Amino acid sequence: MLYFEDFAVGQKFHTGRCRVDASEIAEFAAKYDPQPFHLDAEAAKASLFGGLAASGWHSAAMMMRLVVDSEFRPAGGIIGSGGELAWLKPVRPGDELRVESEIVELRESRSRPQQGIVKVRLTMLNQSDETVQTFTPTLLVNRRSA
Amino acid sequence: MLYFEDFAVGQKFHTGRCRVDASEIAEFAAKYDPQPFHLDAEAAKASLFGGLAASGWHSAAMMMRLVVDSEFRPAGGIIGSGGELAWLKPVRPGDELRVESEIVELRESRSRPQQGIVKVRLTMLNQSDETVQTFTPTLLVNRRSA
Repeated sequence: MLYFEDFAVGQKFHTGRCRVDASEIAEFAAKYDPQPFHLDAEAAKASLFGGLAASGWHSAAMMMRLVVDSEFRPAGGIIGSGGELAWLKPVRPGDELRVESEIVELRESRSRPQQGIVKVRLTMLNQSDETVQTFTPTLLVNRRSA
Repeated sequence: MLYFEDFAVGQKFHTGRCRVDASEIAEFAAKYDPQPFHLDAEAAKASLFGGLAASGWHSAAMMMRLVVDSEFRPAGGIIGSGGELAWLKPVRPGDELRVESEIVELRESRSRPQQGIVKVRLTMLNQSDETVQTFTPTLLVNRRSA
């Protein structure tokens, strides 16, 4: 468990890997993003994606699961107030994803003296080391003194 | 279906409503964000959320579903390259959510002459008209001429 005081700018964290399953792409899309290019391989060919691609929100959810299961364990949990999200390449069935994280900023919290603010850049890569997604959230992390 | 040429800055769109279900919060969290404050009401009391709250990625996914089911139908589908995401208030079991959208910017695409770039601010509100989440994605939308 890492308290605010344990973090340093430039610190890096790694996750395990997860394999993207075609049926999970369709299942997530049917529930949350039912657009043809996430549901049907034929329809996806004619789309901007040129083939079946995971919903960006599914990619984001898979990134979160990789990070939650990793060595990155801020005290109080991974609780973000938001950040900049970028989808750079389609996530395809069979892709093997992992996340590399780097601490980019540390700040005191004026409104919450028991927490500090940790900004982290999350980069999700596929099996060809292509960056498919980035997210740079601001997290609230408990201070050791709290 | 709305082509790039059909959009105008300031244009507004509305969605229907969806009710947040406690069991769906737990189901999503178990799969993608298994942290105690998304899974267990007792554990959540002791967290920063002060009670059970949906994963931010679940909130984002619910927002997407509301928008996909709405009158907002850009030609080619809702395809974003990313944007700024903010979680402002916890989403709770029993909340009734809706999304208000406003077109904030329109640009030609240099690299893609058949598409234009539409920036839209999505605001998700609960039954008390509190903003719980915002997302301002950049979308690629087909031109009528394409």
